[in-house]
Amino acid sequence: MSSIAPQRARFAAPAAPRAATRHRPLAVPSVRLTGGPLGAWQDLNGTATIPHCIDQLEASGVLDNFRRLVGESDAEHRGYVFADSDLYKVIEAVAWEIARTGTSAHDAWLDDVIALVGRAQEPSGYVHTWIQGVEPAKQFAALEWTHEMYVAGHLVQAAVALARADGRTDLLDIAVRFADLLDTRFGADGEDAICGHPEIETALVELYRLTGTRRYLDLASKMIDLRGHGLLPVGGLGAHYFQDHRPVRESTSAVGHAVRQLYLNAGATDVAVETGDATLLQAMDAQWTSAHDRKMYLSGAFGSRHRDEAFGDDYELPSERAYAETCATIADLFWTWRMLSADGGAGAARYAESIEREVHNALAAAVDATGTRFFYANPLQLRHDHDSEENAPRERASWYPCACCPPNIARAVAQLGAFVASATDGALWIHQLADAEIDLPDDVGSGVVRVSTAYPVDGRVEIRVEGDVVPGALLHVRVPSWSAGSVVVAPDGPHPRGRDGYASIRVVAGATYVLDLDLTPRLTAAHHRVDALRGSLAIERGPVVYCVEQVDVGEGADVDDLALLPDREIAGEHAALQVTCVVVTEPEGLYGPDRPAEAAGERVVTAVPFASWGNRAPGPMRVWLPRASR
Amino acid sequence: MSSIAPQRARFAAPAAPRAATRHRPLAVPSVRLTGGPLGAWQDLNGTATIPHCIDQLEASGVLDNFRRLVGESDAEHRGYVFADSDLYKVIEAVAWEIARTGTSAHDAWLDDVIALVGRAQEPSGYVHTWIQGVEPAKQFAALEWTHEMYVAGHLVQAAVALARADGRTDLLDIAVRFADLLDTRFGADGEDAICGHPEIETALVELYRLTGTRRYLDLASKMIDLRGHGLLPVGGLGAHYFQDHRPVRESTSAVGHAVRQLYLNAGATDVAVETGDATLLQAMDAQWTSAHDRKMYLSGAFGSRHRDEAFGDDYELPSERAYAETCATIADLFWTWRMLSADGGAGAARYAESIEREVHNALAAAVDATGTRFFYANPLQLRHDHDSEENAPRERASWYPCACCPPNIARAVAQLGAFVASATDGALWIHQLADAEIDLPDDVGSGVVRVSTAYPVDGRVEIRVEGDVVPGALLHVRVPSWSAGSVVVAPDGPHPRGRDGYASIRVVAGATYVLDLDLTPRLTAAHHRVDALRGSLAIERGPVVYCVEQVDVGEGADVDDLALLPDREIAGEHAALQVTCVVVTEPEGLYGPDRPAEAAGERVVTAVPFASWGNRAPGPMRVWLPRASR
Repeated sequence: MSSIAPQRARFAAPAAPRAATRHRPLAVPSVRLTGGPLGAWQDLNGTATIPHCIDQLEASGVLDNFRRLVGESDAEHRGYVFADSDLYKVIEAVAWEIARTGTSAHDAWLDDVIALVGRAQEPSGYVHTWIQGVEPAKQFAALEWTHEMYVAGHLVQAAVALARADGRTDLLDIAVRFADLLDTRFGADGEDAICGHPEIETALVELYRLTGTRRYLDLASKMIDLRGHGLLPVGGLGAHYFQDHRPVRESTSAVGHAVRQLYLNAGATDVAVETGDATLLQAMDAQWTSAHDRKMYLSGAFGSRHRDEAFGDDYELPSERAYAETCATIADLFWTWRMLSADGGAGAARYAESIEREVHNALAAAVDATGTRFFYANPLQLRHDHDSEENAPRERASWYPCACCPPNIARAVAQLGAFVASATDGALWIHQLADAEIDLPDDVGSGVVRVSTAYPVDGRVEIRVEGDVVPGALLHVRVPSWSAGSVVVAPDGPHPRGRDGYASIRVVAGATYVLDLDLTPRLTAAHHRVDALRGSLAIERGPVVYCVEQVDVGEGADVDDLALLPDREIAGEHAALQVTCVVVTEPEGLYGPDRPAEAAGERVVTAVPFASWGNRAPGPMRVWLPRASR
Repeated sequence: MSSIAPQRARFAAPAAPRAATRHRPLAVPSVRLTGGPLGAWQDLNGTATIPHCIDQLEASGVLDNFRRLVGESDAEHRGYVFADSDLYKVIEAVAWEIARTGTSAHDAWLDDVIALVGRAQEPSGYVHTWIQGVEPAKQFAALEWTHEMYVAGHLVQAAVALARADGRTDLLDIAVRFADLLDTRFGADGEDAICGHPEIETALVELYRLTGTRRYLDLASKMIDLRGHGLLPVGGLGAHYFQDHRPVRESTSAVGHAVRQLYLNAGATDVAVETGDATLLQAMDAQWTSAHDRKMYLSGAFGSRHRDEAFGDDYELPSERAYAETCATIADLFWTWRMLSADGGAGAARYAESIEREVHNALAAAVDATGTRFFYANPLQLRHDHDSEENAPRERASWYPCACCPPNIARAVAQLGAFVASATDGALWIHQLADAEIDLPDDVGSGVVRVSTAYPVDGRVEIRVEGDVVPGALLHVRVPSWSAGSVVVAPDGPHPRGRDGYASIRVVAGATYVLDLDLTPRLTAAHHRVDALRGSLAIERGPVVYCVEQVDVGEGADVDDLALLPDREIAGEHAALQVTCVVVTEPEGLYGPDRPAEAAGERVVTAVPFASWGNRAPGPMRVWLPRASR
């Protein structure tokens, strides 16, 4: 049995004493989303999404791929080389669900599938059903595309989550055997190798955090050092596709396959933090600015190109061609949370605000109201004649041939609580405004902070401290930048937003703190270099991005012919805003003299949260509307 | 030996008496581009591009692929499955060069390579080096990707061109054997099959035009009928990738791989014209409007997506992500010329103006000033941090792994004269304003029309009729839409532009006609639905589209920060215009309130013809500039 350092068992937290972090994560069960939109979403995730994913593992052949290795199925191998990772991500989701709710509903399923993985594992510790069952000769022989370490990484993450969630170590034993195989073969005295798809790096650091075994950190560190030196054979997609084009410490621009870049950055930040590598953390700062200040969609999505599933160039952010893979947003959540913990250069408030944007928009849009249908790509516009593509269909699908996204949603949503708060010495930080009950860290007090709010449906946030408080302990509450004038009203008076983006309060047991946020709808424009968004405006209300669907435009007008009148008041509430537009008419034909198009037919149209689009009927949609000439 | 109907030998013209065309093409040698930019380009094509292509056929292994089949080389097969088509396209270019200049410089090379193809041809008539040399079992067994009929199509086109150019029939014999094999196997009594890459259809109609053998037209016609019924196995790219998603007569929108759609349309138009199929021609009308009124770049390029090399949705025309494959513009030239001949619904003037736009911009940009370096993709914008891709590098390349474009340029430029003029009963039509000597059709007169002009460098076009003229014969001269007020000044007075876009003149022997076009630079805007171009303007002068290169912006400003002042005069001449801009400054960060960005630092920058960009140094470039707030 694997040994787990007891104090680490329930914490997704930096482990090394010298870890260069400022914020300590809280244990997943210490932050309970008790209500509000995020809590409701977690419940839906637990009751609908996770069971759906479990069913799909059977339907898509993922479990049969294991069974056939041990003579328990005659099925052909199905799915991509990395299909095993679907299983591991679902196990991880179940783990966080156990941590969150204490459910035992999945215990028998876990017993079954973990035993199955154990039977399929070779004595060496190796387990990867595609290699074992389809192309054994390729074992560690074509790392640029076999995803072997990627799959191992998800195995390790699932095992770590399960150990943290309830101390269960059967999957951890399997994961440790695979990790030890990797370390023996590719560690300090082993071969130099990296995987075409990063993921193993962050997983190994997490395994180190859980077990205290330094070798895993060293192996992750070696892999970060090796990347960018051309170890991987370059295919038609170029070395930048898998970030092997430049050493990580010199890579200041987010490029290539977006999910790979962002998982890599999560791992590199983990390594930087655990080894105190300031140069590496600086590179991550530059990467973060590149990704978030020049390459992020308004929805908190990443990846401008279908081709190569890649980041685009700076400011290349087309709405209709947004690839905006759900997994890229999830990868960025994990990475940005690590940057927040590390106290990276952008500051906690900016990281937290990015996470908020991602959770309430790109991530939320990726799953439908039933919790069982998903987008893989999340474009910010759908045209009338949209020429459907596998990953960007007109509607959410119940599963995908490449099924990376649905299980990723399941595991991300189950652990959303982890991103809500953190601790520093003698202080609790509330980063996400969500209805929640948060255990006080020991050096803040004993008891809970109870946050009551329907945010972002409305803007009132009430925070009550229940229990004993260590004298002098502080509470830092993030005040979003778009409501920078709001103050936290406390018994000792108003506390304004500080320069760090947080209102800081000396905690008093039994006190109630109230933050009233300004959710007046606002119009947002893009940087002038974003060609795709020039002359256009988006509607936001609090952290929520809106869109207009054809179904809400009404008869006789086309969503693509609307132009927004920017000076009119926007009425309505969270679920539906009313915006005033004109309808532009212009004859067919593409190019002509520079003349204003005719605009008439003023009408009020409904805008709905981008996250909710396509829940009625498939149809054209746009987030950005042209600004009507004033 | 193949038999050629004598009257057809030198004409690329409809052959059936009932052919539903209005305009008769002239023989290639009957239109001689005697000077001016197009004539100079043809000379460069003959002296530099064609010899370069001939060299590259050797260097890239295309010829060795044939030699290895007959034991004359030990080399491995190199290149894609369709590499043979490179050879056939170069032979076609040489053929038109012979027609144009009478050169015998390539005769020995032709003798060699034609004999080589003949030796490689199987007794059945089959010749396709990849199938024969790499995967013989795939012969006609995987038509969705083997390009066997596509390659056969280029063989036929080369053979037809060579026969038309100088009556040479050795390649024609080879082509006829292959065509007969196709007809036996897939003709009226044969299997139903189509090729994944259209091309054979137009080639077979041309072979019918040359030889009068009706079976070839029938086979092309059958292939048009079969397409769109799901005969091809659907891969990951979908049936619309190769236009097998919908019957051709019902396909009113240009979709999928752009080159395939446009070659298919050339073939379908040929079939419609030769069989008098009005329904098919109507579908082609709709396709033409779709491609040109909703999916064409300002440069006359097509294909908005790198992924699948595809047309985008309507109005999806991003500048920086324009795939805009050179071959798509060439395919459209061939198709649009057929639509003009057929007197399709858009009218001769619109077809001719599209051809003009394509030739002077997208096609011209695809080759450098030395004639030996080429673009495969022709984006209308290059960003600073452009993340290079194989097909859209920062600079023109001397060759490509997929080398379809360079030989296609060579064959298109060599036959440019064919698009300059046409005949109807008793009338000569001048569609392209180029320095040229055009033989009078018999029913117009005997002698020549001499066109003297440096157009589009300047706007004066002088037309002199030398020889005898049939009484009542007409001359129709196209007056471009952007200079609609210009008149042709004739001895009998001014002739304005008619509603059909042409000035019509009764021809008088010895007379001189003068057209002075207005080349005042103008600003062009795009339809309001084109999100990528909103709030932006392009500079045009005559048929020429301009761009601004970073190298011309000067110190301390970035081409991506320029905003054009639309009310200032644009000075300069063809090679360089001076436009007045302001420089926009805005802090980093992507999204914020709707505020005008600060603009200052007014400066005059040089704009150069888009066709000439990247001839100095690689660097950022843009065709569309944001319009400065007025």
